[in-house]
Amino acid sequence: MVKQISIIDAKDHVDEEVRIGGWLTDKRSSGKISFLQLRDGSAFFQGVVVKSQVSEEVFQLAKDLKQESSMWITGVIHEDTRSHFGYEIEVSNIELVGESGDYPITPKEHGVEFLLDHRHLWLRSKRTFAIMQIRNEIIRATYEFYNQEGFIKMDPPILTGSAPEGTTELFHIEYFENDAYLTQSGQLYAEAGAMAFGKVFTFGPVFRAEKSKTRRHLTEFWMIEPEMAFMNQDQSLEVQEKYIAYLVQNVIDHCEYDLNLLDRDIDQLKKYTQLPYPRISYDKAIEMLQAADFDVKWGDDFGAPDETYLSDQFEQPVFIMNYPKAIKPFYMKPHPTRDDVYLCADLLAPEGYGEIIGGSERETDYDKLEAEIVKMGLDLKDYEWYLDLRRYGSVPHSGFGLGLERAITWICGIDHLREAIPFPRMINRIQP
Amino acid sequence: MVKQISIIDAKDHVDEEVRIGGWLTDKRSSGKISFLQLRDGSAFFQGVVVKSQVSEEVFQLAKDLKQESSMWITGVIHEDTRSHFGYEIEVSNIELVGESGDYPITPKEHGVEFLLDHRHLWLRSKRTFAIMQIRNEIIRATYEFYNQEGFIKMDPPILTGSAPEGTTELFHIEYFENDAYLTQSGQLYAEAGAMAFGKVFTFGPVFRAEKSKTRRHLTEFWMIEPEMAFMNQDQSLEVQEKYIAYLVQNVIDHCEYDLNLLDRDIDQLKKYTQLPYPRISYDKAIEMLQAADFDVKWGDDFGAPDETYLSDQFEQPVFIMNYPKAIKPFYMKPHPTRDDVYLCADLLAPEGYGEIIGGSERETDYDKLEAEIVKMGLDLKDYEWYLDLRRYGSVPHSGFGLGLERAITWICGIDHLREAIPFPRMINRIQP
Ligand SMILES: [Mg+2]
Ligand SMILES: [Mg+2]
Repeated sequence: MVKQISIIDAKDHVDEEVRIGGWLTDKRSSGKISFLQLRDGSAFFQGVVVKSQVSEEVFQLAKDLKQESSMWITGVIHEDTRSHFGYEIEVSNIELVGESGDYPITPKEHGVEFLLDHRHLWLRSKRTFAIMQIRNEIIRATYEFYNQEGFIKMDPPILTGSAPEGTTELFHIEYFENDAYLTQSGQLYAEAGAMAFGKVFTFGPVFRAEKSKTRRHLTEFWMIEPEMAFMNQDQSLEVQEKYIAYLVQNVIDHCEYDLNLLDRDIDQLKKYTQLPYPRISYDKAIEMLQAADFDVKWGDDFGAPDETYLSDQFEQPVFIMNYPKAIKPFYMKPHPTRDDVYLCADLLAPEGYGEIIGGSERETDYDKLEAEIVKMGLDLKDYEWYLDLRRYGSVPHSGFGLGLERAITWICGIDHLREAIPFPRMINRIQP
Repeated sequence: MVKQISIIDAKDHVDEEVRIGGWLTDKRSSGKISFLQLRDGSAFFQGVVVKSQVSEEVFQLAKDLKQESSMWITGVIHEDTRSHFGYEIEVSNIELVGESGDYPITPKEHGVEFLLDHRHLWLRSKRTFAIMQIRNEIIRATYEFYNQEGFIKMDPPILTGSAPEGTTELFHIEYFENDAYLTQSGQLYAEAGAMAFGKVFTFGPVFRAEKSKTRRHLTEFWMIEPEMAFMNQDQSLEVQEKYIAYLVQNVIDHCEYDLNLLDRDIDQLKKYTQLPYPRISYDKAIEMLQAADFDVKWGDDFGAPDETYLSDQFEQPVFIMNYPKAIKPFYMKPHPTRDDVYLCADLLAPEGYGEIIGGSERETDYDKLEAEIVKMGLDLKDYEWYLDLRRYGSVPHSGFGLGLERAITWICGIDHLREAIPFPRMINRIQP
């Protein structure tokens, strides 16, 4: 019996007869030959149907196939040095599996709202395919990295009875007789995990009811939040840069095909595997912006143009360290010799992608943390359990959060977060 | 400088002086010697403080330490053949890091509601530690398995604009001007993924607003849902049993310490790595139950006692195949020669743990699927995108869902789903 293979494995079957289940993405026919563009979910390649070498029925079927028809293809694999993929199949037989209607996503240009309305089909397109392969690799490499480094995965709850950083931008749920909210961050729970398991990472969906419609916002996205006991901020920065370099290296090693589909410059990516990443202070960043005539003063948070300018001054991702207290959350640990900044850092991605990581050392002192909670106007009752972590054997600990989709857009070199997740959720989009 | 290590790595540092950051779980002191039970998140072991070999201050500190105090311990690692762990530390110095108040979870017995109220601390206990290590290993091995098998991870949306299987047991959200619901299953989206990527798996939280208070129900739990294009139900069963055996084997290989902490019989688990698993029909299962005087008739769904009895008849997990249409969802593919059952199977875990997997081949025919949706009283408009998967190149495909926490309780040999997740959510519990 003819061996069934995936397109991605064509290289191992040159000059062999094989069978592939797949779909038609495009075709070109003359009187004597048809070129079928095929995909099977593992890769894309070309099938060649030569009239003189197949039955009349098969040649006619090849000519009549509509876009996205599914079929079993039988044929012999050949090298194809003209194509990016490098292999093609010389078709001997086609068995139609599923016909296709008039497929809505044609090779012509479509508007993005139309494409998002058809996201369940748009996933089949080459560009989306490549992004999702890279997303998968980043996910895979994340698990591999943290497992190698002795972390355990800890899943914080998605449904919470209170809000970690105040009550804005929260999705509310009627939870039987109670109120509940969708998590915005698993960090506080990860801290409980670090006290139990030493080093933990979370990796799950988080939610922000943001009304922003920018290309940098989703209401539902995935975060990776490592948290490490007995570790200070400097040690945390070392974990962060090692992790990011690991992601980039693994995408280079395993997704060359996909990076090429996206026209992503691999030499550019290789720069991001060089460690250490530069570190500058928030103070220095303000100076740099002011020297370049940006209208900012010490104490301001950075906007997207500020972050773009700053990251453009470096060839690698850059850590901006020690932000003013007023623009960062209450649980951060103050600088030991300065009253006005925290022991924290954001990592800005190059090429204008902005912040991809935010992290800090955490306040360990019970009284100071309690005072901050009160000062922020938060309800102490909601934080009793969190304060317990300082009541019973508090230890120095640090952590950070990476936004998965932000990392994907940067590594893929694409513009919009909405392309980095299979089914994006935004203020005006909850379908399909 | 003395090397900083984790307890789990003690075996590599016998007779070396090392430094460990950790917490006290218990202690025993006499006039001349103190035995400190220590944990650092990687494992548990004993520290021995001999009065004649440390300073007076250190010996006094060791005597005064309260449960869950945190500290840096310096000392020399020795083999300790009397303990399960096999190593201990002969303490030369202790630096207190964080004091502890009166820790609420003492070595005495506590009620489960009290423990759940203190889940953020209960995570530190030996039993919870072991369960969470095994949970982590099952997660790790799941990613490894599906990546090896050529699947990509595809994240379905958590927020959905409509409900996959009717509108019962759904959590509702106000989504700006619209209604949204928390996902109960990512399957329909995984089917769109399989048509784009061939083989996909989801792994994320799902939600059921179930009012049940049984030990087998959580309102928030994690599901793994693989979906495979060009694959029939028999092929899917082979993936399922290979996956389950892989999980069990990896837990045996990597979590012996944790299985021992839980008194789990490893020889029992080894039986579950033998393939294939037995397969019986639903018809046969009904016969077996009737022969054992259970009050069931053909067409009934199985309750927990039925599943327990059936699984007790086998040494391994058992597939129950081809259930009546009336008790399974609309998207399943009917049996080719029988009008009354689907091409589906549930996998029952041994030792009375009941269903851990449900799966089926999926209906591929547009007209039949549309008719089922109408017959179920569902709104066709909500399923237009799903029907598109049959409109444009439909192919045979199959998939299944594993409940993570159900698999954990079975592999760990524990009674309650609430112990299998870090922060369980149930009808009466949304805190901490
Ligand atoms: Mg920022
Ligand atoms: Mg059942």
